[in-house]
Amino acid sequence: MALTPTREDKFSFGLWTVGYNGADPFGGPTRAHLDTVHAVEKLAELGAYGLTFHDDDLFAFGSTDAQRQHEIDRLKQVLADTGLIIPMVTTNLFSAPVFKDGGFTSNDRGVRRFALRKVLRNIDLAAELGAKTFVMWGGREGAEYDSAKDIRQALERYREAVNLLGDYVTDKGYDIKFAIEPKPNEPRGDILLPTLGHALAFITTLERPELVGVNPEVGHEQMAGLNFAAGIAQALYQGKLFHIDLNGQRGIKYDQDLVFGHGDLHNAFALVDLLENGGPGGGPTYDGPRHFDYKPSRTEDEKGVWDSAAANMQTYLLLKERAAAFRADPEVQEALEASRVNELAVTTLGEGETYDELLADTASYEEFDTDAYFNGKGFGFVRLQQLATEHLLGARG
Amino acid sequence: MALTPTREDKFSFGLWTVGYNGADPFGGPTRAHLDTVHAVEKLAELGAYGLTFHDDDLFAFGSTDAQRQHEIDRLKQVLADTGLIIPMVTTNLFSAPVFKDGGFTSNDRGVRRFALRKVLRNIDLAAELGAKTFVMWGGREGAEYDSAKDIRQALERYREAVNLLGDYVTDKGYDIKFAIEPKPNEPRGDILLPTLGHALAFITTLERPELVGVNPEVGHEQMAGLNFAAGIAQALYQGKLFHIDLNGQRGIKYDQDLVFGHGDLHNAFALVDLLENGGPGGGPTYDGPRHFDYKPSRTEDEKGVWDSAAANMQTYLLLKERAAAFRADPEVQEALEASRVNELAVTTLGEGETYDELLADTASYEEFDTDAYFNGKGFGFVRLQQLATEHLLGARG
Amino acid sequence: MALTPTREDKFSFGLWTVGYNGADPFGGPTRAHLDTVHAVEKLAELGAYGLTFHDDDLFAFGSTDAQRQHEIDRLKQVLADTGLIIPMVTTNLFSAPVFKDGGFTSNDRGVRRFALRKVLRNIDLAAELGAKTFVMWGGREGAEYDSAKDIRQALERYREAVNLLGDYVTDKGYDIKFAIEPKPNEPRGDILLPTLGHALAFITTLERPELVGVNPEVGHEQMAGLNFAAGIAQALYQGKLFHIDLNGQRGIKYDQDLVFGHGDLHNAFALVDLLENGGPGGGPTYDGPRHFDYKPSRTEDEKGVWDSAAANMQTYLLLKERAAAFRADPEVQEALEASRVNELAVTTLGEGETYDELLADTASYEEFDTDAYFNGKGFGFVRLQQLATEHLLGARG
Amino acid sequence: MALTPTREDKFSFGLWTVGYNGADPFGGPTRAHLDTVHAVEKLAELGAYGLTFHDDDLFAFGSTDAQRQHEIDRLKQVLADTGLIIPMVTTNLFSAPVFKDGGFTSNDRGVRRFALRKVLRNIDLAAELGAKTFVMWGGREGAEYDSAKDIRQALERYREAVNLLGDYVTDKGYDIKFAIEPKPNEPRGDILLPTLGHALAFITTLERPELVGVNPEVGHEQMAGLNFAAGIAQALYQGKLFHIDLNGQRGIKYDQDLVFGHGDLHNAFALVDLLENGGPGGGPTYDGPRHFDYKPSRTEDEKGVWDSAAANMQTYLLLKERAAAFRADPEVQEALEASRVNELAVTTLGEGETYDELLADTASYEEFDTDAYFNGKGFGFVRLQQLATEHLLGARG
Repeated sequence: MALTPTREDKFSFGLWTVGYNGADPFGGPTRAHLDTVHAVEKLAELGAYGLTFHDDDLFAFGSTDAQRQHEIDRLKQVLADTGLIIPMVTTNLFSAPVFKDGGFTSNDRGVRRFALRKVLRNIDLAAELGAKTFVMWGGREGAEYDSAKDIRQALERYREAVNLLGDYVTDKGYDIKFAIEPKPNEPRGDILLPTLGHALAFITTLERPELVGVNPEVGHEQMAGLNFAAGIAQALYQGKLFHIDLNGQRGIKYDQDLVFGHGDLHNAFALVDLLENGGPGGGPTYDGPRHFDYKPSRTEDEKGVWDSAAANMQTYLLLKERAAAFRADPEVQEALEASRVNELAVTTLGEGETYDELLADTASYEEFDTDAYFNGKGFGFVRLQQLATEHLLGARG
Repeated sequence: MALTPTREDKFSFGLWTVGYNGADPFGGPTRAHLDTVHAVEKLAELGAYGLTFHDDDLFAFGSTDAQRQHEIDRLKQVLADTGLIIPMVTTNLFSAPVFKDGGFTSNDRGVRRFALRKVLRNIDLAAELGAKTFVMWGGREGAEYDSAKDIRQALERYREAVNLLGDYVTDKGYDIKFAIEPKPNEPRGDILLPTLGHALAFITTLERPELVGVNPEVGHEQMAGLNFAAGIAQALYQGKLFHIDLNGQRGIKYDQDLVFGHGDLHNAFALVDLLENGGPGGGPTYDGPRHFDYKPSRTEDEKGVWDSAAANMQTYLLLKERAAAFRADPEVQEALEASRVNELAVTTLGEGETYDELLADTASYEEFDTDAYFNGKGFGFVRLQQLATEHLLGARG
Repeated sequence: MALTPTREDKFSFGLWTVGYNGADPFGGPTRAHLDTVHAVEKLAELGAYGLTFHDDDLFAFGSTDAQRQHEIDRLKQVLADTGLIIPMVTTNLFSAPVFKDGGFTSNDRGVRRFALRKVLRNIDLAAELGAKTFVMWGGREGAEYDSAKDIRQALERYREAVNLLGDYVTDKGYDIKFAIEPKPNEPRGDILLPTLGHALAFITTLERPELVGVNPEVGHEQMAGLNFAAGIAQALYQGKLFHIDLNGQRGIKYDQDLVFGHGDLHNAFALVDLLENGGPGGGPTYDGPRHFDYKPSRTEDEKGVWDSAAANMQTYLLLKERAAAFRADPEVQEALEASRVNELAVTTLGEGETYDELLADTASYEEFDTDAYFNGKGFGFVRLQQLATEHLLGARG
Repeated sequence: MALTPTREDKFSFGLWTVGYNGADPFGGPTRAHLDTVHAVEKLAELGAYGLTFHDDDLFAFGSTDAQRQHEIDRLKQVLADTGLIIPMVTTNLFSAPVFKDGGFTSNDRGVRRFALRKVLRNIDLAAELGAKTFVMWGGREGAEYDSAKDIRQALERYREAVNLLGDYVTDKGYDIKFAIEPKPNEPRGDILLPTLGHALAFITTLERPELVGVNPEVGHEQMAGLNFAAGIAQALYQGKLFHIDLNGQRGIKYDQDLVFGHGDLHNAFALVDLLENGGPGGGPTYDGPRHFDYKPSRTEDEKGVWDSAAANMQTYLLLKERAAAFRADPEVQEALEASRVNELAVTTLGEGETYDELLADTASYEEFDTDAYFNGKGFGFVRLQQLATEHLLGARG
């Protein structure tokens, strides 16, 4: 069975993903530089709808204005030719030596000013290209050693930076929102805003919190052993899922950036179910880009690059089919009922009930039969999980 | 050298900590029940200033009113006799079978109502005993399987519960604040609000966010591989460090609840430095209880219980001494300067500077010498860390 | 589709698995004691072929001889009635307070002698019941603190114990082999022989290494972040896979003991493929019991216990089907060829080739085209993984 | 207090350690190439006694014979000038694209032959330079995907390679032994022989096992959450600690290669105690090089490189002092006694005692008072750990 991606699926790829040259901490590149125009043409051919990029992906750090413009022009042309769009742009504040202690939160004030300038310039480009989301991954904002970084001042400088950017896009009238991408570690020993929770909390301290959401990445949360689908549910709950990075990770280790679905399949299934169907209880879903932030394995040549790009989309579509069948299965519906999953949507107090009324309700406490939960009133969660597993395995067609 | 804990140090212990009987997933108790009065007397003798407890620690789940009152009376008497106080109280919503799918967020509405009643009753007791903090650890609020729990509805029910409790203490005029204690997993596969970041974010959705902060525990954040001291800095930054649980954990594994300092010593040093001195850049510190939430190892008899209780305080005081010497050392101050740690407190933009002025400042970008950061402008972080290490090891006077 | 387990599938369950009462570090039992006879009847009904047990599962620690015999007799009767067999027996050296610092390696010599006696007695019972494998999980053999345990002496005492047991079964003429079950931690901070590698290495120091192999458990290796299927391949390579414990684990955290397949599905697929088909290159497989060492979730009542027992077998059979289809698919075979997976079975030197001949072969070095591996000679591993993923998801039926 | 390293301390450094240029997965170099001669001079000045290197560290991959010889000659001269020695040499089978699927176990036979040739050539150089140890880190021997690698064939090819190398050094009369360096992952998703246990086990399958031991690295074992000191104890127990890599790691995450002592301090203390004093029970120690395999943080310039090199030695010497004081403290000796640590050195059976005699000894079982271990017979491990902690902190000087 082959599922065909279409632009309505809103699949997008980072230029740095298919363009990854294979360099890692223990070896240099195994693939030549991938030309932007070629990359866009291939992605279009495979069914993607969008391309995203860091400034330094498109034109090397330190490019002249002319070199920069040349690359921008080439990009615009191939977008026009293929119909691909640029849903998101981001800035590289982590590769060049100047950012070795971070960008917005480098201890070095000159670096922080340079970083802001680099981002402002790139926001203009993002607006020019019609991007609606501007992602900020602060991969170098952090430290290896506790006394090397005053975390509170780092948060204050991060806040200063994002406040300024918020003012900037507002004043310019840009239709752009920001999405902070959390990561617990790597390349720094500990990174500022290590999980989507920390980022969501930080956003509430901003002057324009409505402009800023999160861009969680599957592997990044899983590198902290956290349940990605559950985190996404909280981000949706707080109205802050502005963008999403899909990929695969096999547990707590270095950042693997595998193909989506080549990591924790159960959680990938739950995630697609949440994004497409609203999860166990239904509810609002996500309608932004399905953005793949992965790396074609270093063992591959260019054929492997495109095979892997296609695999991301293929697996997403397969999981979407599986999730739809899961939701439609009457036995699943019955099992959800038995597990009282939907009962959680019922308020704990009755409509208009006060705490005094609750306190007066002896059925709720004095006469409540807690003993019934010993050796009885099982929740049936294992059966439900087995149904999910069998749907995931395509065994309940 | 023996450092003597005093009540000014504000050391407190959970009744369940010294009272831990040694039961774990693979074995039953190795120690007899510890009587409350005896526990308080011993803690007082060792230099603690406070006792904390879950309702079920003091009187067993299902106690009659008379049994309950008897235990409360005995506690009050020994508090009067020893001068110990009750800075914090918490409720057990996780041990009894009725809570097998959680308390505030059980799929079972009857359980949720029962849980609220249990908490309300315990808040009255907390107020009666003068506790200023009410901790909520939702250890059973979670799931093993993704489709078993609608996370958004769970957050909504958690929110309903905390809103109600906030109304209750406000209406009653209780001088009590709430502190949510995050944990990533165990006993559930994934727990709601898995890190202090997620909890801080959730708090902003509440009706009375000012009443609610966090009670982070060393081991809980470290179970997610997160830097505890950095997390505490964010909690302080957001004004939400209402309480703290000190203990030791050796990496990502089951919840060990070791003695404070018997886990990650570097991070414990940084934490004490932060709590006592405000961390690398100074700044506001924490003045609440230094609460030990640990378990005397199962291998120990009662002597080991008290040795371990004393060890927590001893190590804290030692680290406090080490941190003071670190801050006072001129070589450290010089190294901090070289690492530009305090430069992070300088705003990135000048006073009153606008982004237009930044954009016009060619020194910040066009003429900024990024090349100087290659093979130069080192941050000296390793030297700083070595100074911290030597202070920690007591090797610099 | 429902797959029906039969006795030929050799599915076995620990009495402590379906009998798990739900107690965990934060709560007591949620289910009543499960009677042995009832357990055996139900397992037989569900399609299992074997029961395994610790002595203390069958008769409580400290039972009189009469109580012990009574339980043994009841077991024998229900085995006779149902046709179930006892393929494996093991001894509980971890639950009673006497074992709080371990059994074979407790610092306390009296405990070590007691442990040996308890095991010897249980070996007699194992022989009497026809068990062919005697598992040794040294869950309490370890330490929380480095200076508390002399690891070399602990290994020496462990060796002394296993040597003695080897002599015993040899002298008695018992047809029993031993299988050491590794685990990295929990309930001890660090456990002796933490991975199957450490156990395999230790076995080579024994006087009768041929009598001793390993009993790896899915979750135990995954608690160290290790690839379970790869570990099993090494155990098979060294001829030491004497038994296997199947279950599910979701990453590095406390020991979850989920249903097989409710953890890392990709690795479960690879494992079943290895056990049934010999893995990517074929080769000898495993023909012992498929033993489930899992815990029905604490949220479940007895119905959930049997649903979960059935789920283990169902998922195994499904994965077996998926793996067979994967191996049979011509596109997979072609992809394996392209990835040169089978080329690894060709010796690096030619038949009879010496190192002098290799050194003289300029094609191997001086003229070898290493440049061809840049931007070429891709291994096609991602495509292969995607084919595996699609087979796993039942999408290439 | 400054401790001065001397050559008797046998401190050695990899050329790639101080020579690390700062490149990581998210950024390029921050430091220029470090010249070999300069590196050796500085290391000599700081008190090291040895330099180690991969072939590609000394002369770039693909060097002509003349280039290679030129670098070798320069190295020899500076060794002669400074008196430094080359205790260990190793081969780079991981950086060049040709090794993208490994060296000895690449699926590609041509690559395997090339790898063998590269290693043979480098062994000749090692012998010429007087190195006694030849390390093999198979960082690329592994896979990201289970079906991509036949693990049993990979072990067989690894075995073929090491057997051949063993023949080679034997026939040539080289005084060289091999040390396998395990690592669980990074840069491959899973690496062959992931822990020192797996390596120890594999070695027993070789034709010349006496020639091959292990070279465990602190961070590599800790990346699997394993206790490094305990692993080293097993390696010593099995007579296989041929070399050791010292560095620092902060938990389960990417390979950090921090300065020794900048990671888990408790375990570093236990390790130095084991290497210098034989650990809790005394016993044979390790007398090979104390080899630092670390990376100066990317934030540092050259000053930071040398500060960090010195910090490794300084911390080792400090921990050696602390461990000596710990062993000499009468209170520690008394605590060890109370914890029965040395009782583990007493055989469980009496001298000449048979199992029949053990079975006949009613004191060992029938009359053994297991109840005494409830609420009594505590092991005092927490007190012992607190004594260790206080010694580590220099608080009991």
